[in-house]
Amino acid sequence: MSLRFIAISGTTDVTENCYLYESDHDMIMVDCGVGFPDPGMYGVDLVIPDFTYVLANKNKLKGIIISHGHEDHIGAIPFLLKELRVPVYSTKLVAGFIEDKLLDFGIKDVKVNVFDPEKDTIALGAFKITPFRVSHSVPDGVGFCIDTSEGKLFHVPDYKFDWTPVDGRPFDVKKAAILASGGALALASDALGSNIPGHTASEAEIEEKLLSIMEKARGQVFFSTISSNISRVQQALNVAKSLGRKTVFIGRSIDKKAQIARRLGYLFYDNNQVVSVKQADKLDVNQVMYVVSGSYGQPGSALYRISVSEHEYLKAEMGDTVIFSGDPAPPGSKANVDFVVDRFFELGVDVHYYDIQEDLHVSGHGSQEDIKALFGLISPKYFIPIGGTIRHMKGYSKIAQDMGAKPEEVFELKSGEVIEFKDKNARISERIPVRDVLVDGLGIGDVGNVVLRDRHVLSKEGIAIVILQVDRNQGKLFADPEVLSRGFVFEGTSKDLLIRAGKELKTKIDSKGRIDSKVAKDTTVDFLEKFFFTEIGRRPMVLPVVVEV
Amino acid sequence: MSLRFIAISGTTDVTENCYLYESDHDMIMVDCGVGFPDPGMYGVDLVIPDFTYVLANKNKLKGIIISHGHEDHIGAIPFLLKELRVPVYSTKLVAGFIEDKLLDFGIKDVKVNVFDPEKDTIALGAFKITPFRVSHSVPDGVGFCIDTSEGKLFHVPDYKFDWTPVDGRPFDVKKAAILASGGALALASDALGSNIPGHTASEAEIEEKLLSIMEKARGQVFFSTISSNISRVQQALNVAKSLGRKTVFIGRSIDKKAQIARRLGYLFYDNNQVVSVKQADKLDVNQVMYVVSGSYGQPGSALYRISVSEHEYLKAEMGDTVIFSGDPAPPGSKANVDFVVDRFFELGVDVHYYDIQEDLHVSGHGSQEDIKALFGLISPKYFIPIGGTIRHMKGYSKIAQDMGAKPEEVFELKSGEVIEFKDKNARISERIPVRDVLVDGLGIGDVGNVVLRDRHVLSKEGIAIVILQVDRNQGKLFADPEVLSRGFVFEGTSKDLLIRAGKELKTKIDSKGRIDSKVAKDTTVDFLEKFFFTEIGRRPMVLPVVVEV
Repeated sequence: MSLRFIAISGTTDVTENCYLYESDHDMIMVDCGVGFPDPGMYGVDLVIPDFTYVLANKNKLKGIIISHGHEDHIGAIPFLLKELRVPVYSTKLVAGFIEDKLLDFGIKDVKVNVFDPEKDTIALGAFKITPFRVSHSVPDGVGFCIDTSEGKLFHVPDYKFDWTPVDGRPFDVKKAAILASGGALALASDALGSNIPGHTASEAEIEEKLLSIMEKARGQVFFSTISSNISRVQQALNVAKSLGRKTVFIGRSIDKKAQIARRLGYLFYDNNQVVSVKQADKLDVNQVMYVVSGSYGQPGSALYRISVSEHEYLKAEMGDTVIFSGDPAPPGSKANVDFVVDRFFELGVDVHYYDIQEDLHVSGHGSQEDIKALFGLISPKYFIPIGGTIRHMKGYSKIAQDMGAKPEEVFELKSGEVIEFKDKNARISERIPVRDVLVDGLGIGDVGNVVLRDRHVLSKEGIAIVILQVDRNQGKLFADPEVLSRGFVFEGTSKDLLIRAGKELKTKIDSKGRIDSKVAKDTTVDFLEKFFFTEIGRRPMVLPVVVEV
Repeated sequence: MSLRFIAISGTTDVTENCYLYESDHDMIMVDCGVGFPDPGMYGVDLVIPDFTYVLANKNKLKGIIISHGHEDHIGAIPFLLKELRVPVYSTKLVAGFIEDKLLDFGIKDVKVNVFDPEKDTIALGAFKITPFRVSHSVPDGVGFCIDTSEGKLFHVPDYKFDWTPVDGRPFDVKKAAILASGGALALASDALGSNIPGHTASEAEIEEKLLSIMEKARGQVFFSTISSNISRVQQALNVAKSLGRKTVFIGRSIDKKAQIARRLGYLFYDNNQVVSVKQADKLDVNQVMYVVSGSYGQPGSALYRISVSEHEYLKAEMGDTVIFSGDPAPPGSKANVDFVVDRFFELGVDVHYYDIQEDLHVSGHGSQEDIKALFGLISPKYFIPIGGTIRHMKGYSKIAQDMGAKPEEVFELKSGEVIEFKDKNARISERIPVRDVLVDGLGIGDVGNVVLRDRHVLSKEGIAIVILQVDRNQGKLFADPEVLSRGFVFEGTSKDLLIRAGKELKTKIDSKGRIDSKVAKDTTVDFLEKFFFTEIGRRPMVLPVVVEV
């Protein structure tokens, strides 16, 4: 009998959550999320988990269980389902999000299996899984108690202890405590807040603040949050209703998610509370609140287009109000948010953004005191930080050790590392090879180091393309090489430099005597790299193209 | 008689401070700083003010007066002095920094004129300038009272009210108050903190915190801050001395700035307190503190190299301590800091960084209450926010209006806008044309929109270079076009795609009948853009190269 926990990804990164539990004959996956590219991954759209090991063991895989509806927990499901069919299990709202996403990928024949965290358990081969509610920034999230031959393992991704959540359903500590009462072998749980002192605040604090801003607003109100944050949307709807403002959803993603959530009973509003853009057009400016996607200031998003006065229907004007209800989060997003904020200020709009400390956002992740509470509640023998990077794993490990764990009882895993549980003991037994799988356009995994390195150089320095016409019989150049620039210098104003580069290069190559294609190329790269650096201090990529005639 | 204030740059941007005061016959410049490139300015090293207007009026320019030693106030001086010679005035420490910088640019014959803010005034044509001390995060900063034909204008860049500054020299409010007592026509002052509630904390709070961290440290200590932050370096030196640790400066920039500051009497330590790397090598690990440059995690910096175990001399190990004493500030720097933090944690180092709320940094800029205090102190008729972006100007304007100013008494200037003062009244009279001047390598201003747009596309999608050999006599292709990729797809694994692209392109071009170079190029771009997008969802730059034979 063996039991293994494998971090495919999600331990050295905040996102891309994907974990396996494996016995002799069975395997389950918990969460299957995307990651977001580092700034150095030029042009990459998404990063997805490496499914090599899963596909090699696909006969063992009995199902995927999903904790909640954020992209870094569900976003990679379509990529896996394109390779193999396997049952997916989640709560109702999350199933709605997943099925909608599958449709976007042209997968129409998959129904997600919905479980009720109040009463259902899921039996998948050797694993018996009992979900329990947790609170997070999106409704209908759960943690899992996974019953195995070796004992109970708890898997608790993104959570906080919010006793007054917007959906009225807090962390089900009673159920978790009862499940853990017989002893827990291990706990894999959210490490992201492990360096933040104190308790994470409740979502409830936000609604009052929203009200105080919106009741002062006289013009249009544009409210922006991330589209999956259904709880925040509910709060905005509540406030709008109390102030006699109709609501319009702007942006495909926020509109769809709101509709799914309402249909499934997670978002509540009267039929006449939400209107179309056209209907809103007939109302006074102070009778409407727009819920707009683009809270990270993404170029091209609805909020961005409004800020630069390029939206098809909406126009922000002096006296309007914009409310950002979400911190700038992904890498690079602060600069985008700053840009949008400045554009709105320029229009004379009253902007409520991160600098103005109004508590318009609280984290969805537990802080140090919340992490201690979970440790106390579950009291596991072994600890596994997930959903954070190395600094968060260290913080998590420190908390566990402060509470009495031995260093060898906390596993700070690298991607692919395997914990083997045997006779109630745990150790890292091996590391399976995993890599970052990069998605660029329709291509999956074909953008690698060479391409990224090229893009890096091209982005900083551009390229000089050099056309060398070589007379094969004579072994020499026909004429001065032509030098083209893209992203290096502006050909219009730097023509002289490029012509001189060609001339001097010809002299250099001619001095070599009889040449072949390889000599011509090597000489070109050597010579021009030095030439351009000396002349203007830049190091463009030099690409010689030899045409033999 | 006329008096004009011109914002060359620095009002819609936090950096690149450069302002002109102009009378009929005379002009002075206050500050001459660099800006930092936006993320969209691919490969650009620096942004400098547009000196076109200054050079066109160079006979009027009587001098440059500098407020303090940060790059965004002094960094562009060498670029201006290459074009014209004009006297520069600053306090002693700032003069040391400037002269050192000029040497780096090969300018050896310029001596900065040093003024003493306790007693000197500077007469430059129609302007009489009286400096007064302000506190900031770097020592020896000043504000100016500029006496003109129209009245007194106050220019107070980066400042805060710190009553316990490290150098013991707080904001000279007495002098400022006396200077303003006769009435102030206008105040141009730091707007950066205008959306932050409360008072900015004193630098003094940091030293105690540093002590509490360092007295627990058992291994090596690496302390990092930005190199011009001499006050912070002094605090680190004080703490190291009290704990019996010698200090080593690591990194050229921090070493040079510390030496200049000590020589000029702004940084104090005993001769035996600072040692070389070699000397430190003979000491126990707990007898040394390294002051290391690279607090923004800049790739290639000393701190970065230590974190990835690639430094020539230093090696961080389990049990060492790293202290970041500075927030991640410039765009993109958070990701860099996160990377370095994670590497140190991986090495088992105890890292004190921004997430861990230990107050290891306080802002150098006054917050809302400080701004109110300055407004109360100077009581100007007109207000000009500087050193912030649009959102900071709005916040500043709101504070002024809350204190009784009329909207038309606050000037939120765009770059190049001119305020004209006449008969004690002010209005925006015109806008002189200014542009961002981008520095890339040795090139100044030659990187423009075309080059940046190319770099943007290249960074995201790469380039496909297509070699078309056209038989001029026959008006057709010789052979299948060859398609090369750089940063688009990896040629090794996508060879088939590129060959197929060439084949199908030839069929397409052949179908056009007799072609010339232009038809071949246009067809190539049209066809391959669609081809690649359909095949793999990417839009590389397509560059056709026609070789006629």
